[in-house]
Amino acid sequence: MASVDDVTSLSVRRGFLWPAVDLYGGFAGFYDYGHNGVLLRRHWEDLWLETFLGLHDNYYLIDSTTILPEAPLKASGHVDHFTDLLVTCTKCGESYRADHLLSAATKEDYEGLTPEEADAKIRELKIRCTRCKGELAPAKPFNMMFPVGVGPTGKDKAFLRPETAQGVYLNFKREFEALRRRLPMGLAIVGRAYRNEISPRQGTYRMREFLQAELQIFFDPASFADQVPTADVADVPVRICWAAEKNQPTAHDLVAKDLVARGLPSWYVYHLVQVQRFYLDLLGVPRERFRFAELDEKERAFYNKVHFDIQVDQESLGGFREVGGVHYRTDHDLKGHEAMSKVRQEVTVGTTKVLPHVLELSFGVDRNVWALLDLGYTKTDRVVLRLPPRLAPMAVAVFPLVSKDGLPERAEAIYASLRKTTGAFYDDSGSIGKRYARMDEIGTPYCVTVDHDTLEGKGVTLRERDSQKQVRIAEDRLSSTLASLRTGETRFEALA
Amino acid sequence: MASVDDVTSLSVRRGFLWPAVDLYGGFAGFYDYGHNGVLLRRHWEDLWLETFLGLHDNYYLIDSTTILPEAPLKASGHVDHFTDLLVTCTKCGESYRADHLLSAATKEDYEGLTPEEADAKIRELKIRCTRCKGELAPAKPFNMMFPVGVGPTGKDKAFLRPETAQGVYLNFKREFEALRRRLPMGLAIVGRAYRNEISPRQGTYRMREFLQAELQIFFDPASFADQVPTADVADVPVRICWAAEKNQPTAHDLVAKDLVARGLPSWYVYHLVQVQRFYLDLLGVPRERFRFAELDEKERAFYNKVHFDIQVDQESLGGFREVGGVHYRTDHDLKGHEAMSKVRQEVTVGTTKVLPHVLELSFGVDRNVWALLDLGYTKTDRVVLRLPPRLAPMAVAVFPLVSKDGLPERAEAIYASLRKTTGAFYDDSGSIGKRYARMDEIGTPYCVTVDHDTLEGKGVTLRERDSQKQVRIAEDRLSSTLASLRTGETRFEALA
Repeated sequence: MASVDDVTSLSVRRGFLWPAVDLYGGFAGFYDYGHNGVLLRRHWEDLWLETFLGLHDNYYLIDSTTILPEAPLKASGHVDHFTDLLVTCTKCGESYRADHLLSAATKEDYEGLTPEEADAKIRELKIRCTRCKGELAPAKPFNMMFPVGVGPTGKDKAFLRPETAQGVYLNFKREFEALRRRLPMGLAIVGRAYRNEISPRQGTYRMREFLQAELQIFFDPASFADQVPTADVADVPVRICWAAEKNQPTAHDLVAKDLVARGLPSWYVYHLVQVQRFYLDLLGVPRERFRFAELDEKERAFYNKVHFDIQVDQESLGGFREVGGVHYRTDHDLKGHEAMSKVRQEVTVGTTKVLPHVLELSFGVDRNVWALLDLGYTKTDRVVLRLPPRLAPMAVAVFPLVSKDGLPERAEAIYASLRKTTGAFYDDSGSIGKRYARMDEIGTPYCVTVDHDTLEGKGVTLRERDSQKQVRIAEDRLSSTLASLRTGETRFEALA
Repeated sequence: MASVDDVTSLSVRRGFLWPAVDLYGGFAGFYDYGHNGVLLRRHWEDLWLETFLGLHDNYYLIDSTTILPEAPLKASGHVDHFTDLLVTCTKCGESYRADHLLSAATKEDYEGLTPEEADAKIRELKIRCTRCKGELAPAKPFNMMFPVGVGPTGKDKAFLRPETAQGVYLNFKREFEALRRRLPMGLAIVGRAYRNEISPRQGTYRMREFLQAELQIFFDPASFADQVPTADVADVPVRICWAAEKNQPTAHDLVAKDLVARGLPSWYVYHLVQVQRFYLDLLGVPRERFRFAELDEKERAFYNKVHFDIQVDQESLGGFREVGGVHYRTDHDLKGHEAMSKVRQEVTVGTTKVLPHVLELSFGVDRNVWALLDLGYTKTDRVVLRLPPRLAPMAVAVFPLVSKDGLPERAEAIYASLRKTTGAFYDDSGSIGKRYARMDEIGTPYCVTVDHDTLEGKGVTLRERDSQKQVRIAEDRLSSTLASLRTGETRFEALA
């Protein structure tokens, strides 16, 4: 049970993340990462790459520029359609997102309104400026991309990219050649994207600069269903929330084959199962706090044909919140670039000519990090961050019981040897209790204490974070024991 | 001996890197990375982090936003001083960097001129527009930062960061607390920086968007020399090129203690030795192609008191070129932020109050990747990319000799087991010769071939990239042999 203040306070105190540029009074919509936050994020990214690039041996990571010229963003539709509705106070000039104003007044969802619909609703509800009670001007579309002038005269119009995906599409043909003309081909980017949000929110949920991890899978719609092992997952129950019920905290378990029977492509459902596995099995999200939420035509992005959000129920954010999405973008993007650039994007695989379709697995990295902090936060007599061992910033900490009698030297030697293969931390300041407490707060799953018995060859104390239980373990078994605890091969209870 | 075309052609063909947005006719100053380029870069970054964060147990990686508001960049001096001299043609409007125009005409270096000095020199040499022969307007300072408007009205003035360093300084006090008030404290960022270069150059040498890996070491100038083991490196010869001789391809070997005797701080020289070790021992740069080039007062950045560029001699770029720098920034930045923000940056360590000084180890990641491609490129009857094994995109490739008789199945099993611990690649298309050639071009140090003898328990063929020699090796020794080859424990010749 973590409030936004709990997560923020722990994050600042322990070097996870915090609002950027606080030295100059803050910078709304921007966050910085401290040393433990970077490690947590990196471990999440490594697991993400291993999981999703591991789906096929033709899936790879690439990288592209974060500034893009206007033409490709015109082709993708972002210049014309990547807008929110902006409402400004005629008296004080304060700006609002129309749907946020309406949601705040009614607790309902208002995504996808036209300016006229928004104005009518604002008049009907008699909404005025929340700051000065002034009258609100009519809603108008506001493009969320940041413009950037490139070159000495600044006349070459460009934008900070609003998503990583376009960088992949622009490189589709180059990589298709370099990877020797096979489909499916998956190209991922883990990198920054930028949106000039009208009203950024607390925490890392709605930021102006954020990290995305996105995998674009290019495939031939005629054969993709036969290329992924859909039969293997036919009976797996998937947590689903339909568009009509999205304001309720509900989810149904529907087996994969029933989702296919309801009209979802089998390859789409296969990937829902893989994404769910990532969250439940690898990130340790409790089943009841995970769901895929369907988006209806009004809500989903203009380029998506099928769109489910990936949602995690987070106490600090007030319920189920989006951490990613599974998007069937069809051939929207390649077709758009083909039309605008006049360069054919159709390719030949074997003897088949095809303009590939795209399935996008999209994840907000900062939102995932926040979800891990939210879910991991527990407070009883102490604060413990119950992160899955693989994700914790430090895999293990090593303490000398006291700072004398040669204990620090022995502990440092153990620390030095563990550190070769894993993230380890050495600490000799303050009482053992305080040192355990510090490690509990950053989620270190295991602590090793060196005492006088260690010097007599009687092993070290290994303490587990969640149970606070301790076992005695021989020094020469320490490294292998930690490794098998981390992979889950060994359970801590079995060591007693 | 690699020309810029050699490196570019190999890079495009094999998925390393290429000019961005070529689909729309290009985007000067921007490059994208393909799948092999990302792996090469990632391996470089991992080695960099291991090396430089490994210098002290209080050195960590953090991350900060790439957009910064105006105030901190005013404080750092970038708003007022981060400029190049821009010269524009009065007739056709073409833009030039004044020092580039002068260098092109004279083959000499003209960094650090005032506008008046540049104009006088341009008149003296009778330089006109190289495109239309028109007259050039007077030189004027041009700020290289990209402005970005933040918020719905775009009125909150901000910039894309010109270096990662400011993000570290802004977080200095937060991390100093989270890391429990110790000096030295090292904070690194590996991330993007942006400069609106007047004339971006070919290759990744001068880009508008680029990756930096920078470590800021905060220290107490009164005690730093005693905190680093300067005595250990006193007799190490360091490759130095003095400011006066920087246009020549020369370097002297001067032992560390002699550099200290000439007035360089001992802690500064200690870090030169560590940087040199990274290039010579870990990246495998030949000694004669590496040097530190001193910058004189005119050339060095406005915030540096001592400044040596890190340079690597690259055929494709025409000689020694900067790949990084070792910068003694004093307390310039913290003092600037203290004055502008009115927040004290002085800290207390033990009983000492100190405004820390900063030593910056700064590396251009793209420039380093390019240098690796340049140095690795060799062409005889075949093209081989002689990358150090640890840096190669793929550590090993596995081939079945023919695609029948159960060889592919056996090869895939070996591939699957190697792939668990290392980057491995499976290839069964084309002749063995073609498959070797593809791996030579991406620098894969070892190839494993499975043949009919393998099925009879007689091992596999292991082939080395550089010598093209092959040895027969037992299947159960393959994984450990590859591991010890990679670390350098075993030499390939010893296997024969």
